[in-house]
Amino acid sequence: MDAYPAPTLSDGARFDVTGIGNALVDVIAHASDEFLDEHGLTKGWMDLIDTERAVSLYKALGSAVEMSGGSAANTMCGVASFGGSAAYVGKVTDDELGAAFGHDLLAVGVQFRPGDDQNDVPTGRSIIVVTPDAERTMNTFLGASSLLGISDCDDETIADSKVLYMEGYLYDRDEAKAAFRHASKVAHEAGRMVSLTLSDSFCVDRHRDDFRSLVTDEVDLLFGNDAELIALYETETFDDAVAELRQHCEFAAITVGANGSIIITDHDLIEIPAVPVRRVIDTTGAGDLYAAGFLHGLTTGRPLDECGRLGSIAAAEVISHVGPRPLVELRTLVG
Amino acid sequence: MDAYPAPTLSDGARFDVTGIGNALVDVIAHASDEFLDEHGLTKGWMDLIDTERAVSLYKALGSAVEMSGGSAANTMCGVASFGGSAAYVGKVTDDELGAAFGHDLLAVGVQFRPGDDQNDVPTGRSIIVVTPDAERTMNTFLGASSLLGISDCDDETIADSKVLYMEGYLYDRDEAKAAFRHASKVAHEAGRMVSLTLSDSFCVDRHRDDFRSLVTDEVDLLFGNDAELIALYETETFDDAVAELRQHCEFAAITVGANGSIIITDHDLIEIPAVPVRRVIDTTGAGDLYAAGFLHGLTTGRPLDECGRLGSIAAAEVISHVGPRPLVELRTLVG
Repeated sequence: MDAYPAPTLSDGARFDVTGIGNALVDVIAHASDEFLDEHGLTKGWMDLIDTERAVSLYKALGSAVEMSGGSAANTMCGVASFGGSAAYVGKVTDDELGAAFGHDLLAVGVQFRPGDDQNDVPTGRSIIVVTPDAERTMNTFLGASSLLGISDCDDETIADSKVLYMEGYLYDRDEAKAAFRHASKVAHEAGRMVSLTLSDSFCVDRHRDDFRSLVTDEVDLLFGNDAELIALYETETFDDAVAELRQHCEFAAITVGANGSIIITDHDLIEIPAVPVRRVIDTTGAGDLYAAGFLHGLTTGRPLDECGRLGSIAAAEVISHVGPRPLVELRTLVG
Repeated sequence: MDAYPAPTLSDGARFDVTGIGNALVDVIAHASDEFLDEHGLTKGWMDLIDTERAVSLYKALGSAVEMSGGSAANTMCGVASFGGSAAYVGKVTDDELGAAFGHDLLAVGVQFRPGDDQNDVPTGRSIIVVTPDAERTMNTFLGASSLLGISDCDDETIADSKVLYMEGYLYDRDEAKAAFRHASKVAHEAGRMVSLTLSDSFCVDRHRDDFRSLVTDEVDLLFGNDAELIALYETETFDDAVAELRQHCEFAAITVGANGSIIITDHDLIEIPAVPVRRVIDTTGAGDLYAAGFLHGLTTGRPLDECGRLGSIAAAEVISHVGPRPLVELRTLVG
């Protein structure tokens, strides 16, 4: 018998996971710490920016590379890269970046149906500044991505997925909050598991009460990092946050930076070490890919420590190169 | 005294080099040799494709990364990366890829004034398939880039540059041929050096007579590789091609793959070794960056063997990573 058995999921589903999130193209450029200071950027943070700020920041940056991103979209690509089946719900516009975003999902086998075209709102983009220490500082112009609402949820796909995975970044507008509630209801009515990633401490700060009630009411599995969990429950320590969480949600996978992750169940705390990498190049996508590995383990019936190990493997791959999605088939890294 | 003194250039110029070429964004994806076979692609070639083919090929490809490219534009970025001053003439449209292309030139200090907007013709793009052996196979949808004509030449900038650098890829339409003649005339009237890169054997095959007369009439310095030079003069051997070339143009720098390059003057053949790299990742941009190093050496008064060495250094940097432009400041690699 497994030491740490995972919850059994309903089977007979077409997809392992459906993700909902901000559909963004990453515009990645390298810059110095001085650049961050000059432009009032705080390292490691994600800031939402308007068109004007996006234009001026982009202008100041060095040459950049465009790659599809978006937290939950990265996670779905990771699930597919492990050999799982994944679908994605998110909004882009019919422009060049929107076309690239859609192509890159379909190319790795993730189902994607873009929402209705918002003609005058361009596809969202995240300007990511990577400093020499591999840390990423994000400045996100949400564009079309933030306009997601209930009508964009693909109920049939959500009901036909073992796990629903929702991205906290999207949780900034009332329409998105309503969409999360709706999608959770659809998933639960079909007997599926609902998961959420907190995404960002500041997003949690902005919407703490709504996040808390969503976790209490709907979330079966919570992802996030230690800072986000502490922000959610406003505790002094991580242990206090865990105690608080257990009263509302009995299952979580929390990353703790270079220390790996901690899987929380109602009676266990399972520490999962990080997989060492030769050199950390760009931490963008680390949390997204950890979730991908964990979800792949869960949807293939693996014990929890093994789910965490798959998360560590995927995170290690993505931080060893520029860009938020795996460059090798993750299935080939599973020993 | 230098063993291989370079020709003395006129000074008092605002720019070291002005490049003219196809303004393209590279869409780079990895694929297998089987993929090339299935889609009728010949490894290492550059094919011109229409919109329909671009769409179907892109659809078949895995997830891709978008990076600014274009042969002469890559070369100008290389010149700037060495610390030289460079300008670029090429046509993009006012769309997302056009904006990215312009940004990436300005970001490294290359002067760029986009030509008149061609509203209904999108910015050109080159779909580059990189196989596991690091070889690149290009499929180029020219879009706005190919519409360059005399009116797009920035005469003032060309006259104020020590060297004019023209890209053979562009030489497929009558308007471009006229633009090359015009730009050469402007440069020569200002006492400047005119250089040309042959770019592609098949382009040379298509326009051999025009290329030959351009070389004879206008070109002071010819760039290309061994296959292109042989195609230009339809000789059996490289030596025969060199003999033929010397009757029409007394100065050339010809790359010979992994063997490095050969600098041809009226009385010397100077062999320049390649700079070894730990692992070749993507050969895109190798010739472009060789030209950048050579031009930087030439415009800073270095002897010819040193010009070639700078070319080898720049080529080695660009083939050791994905993407056609340097990722480090080339000036830091000059020992």
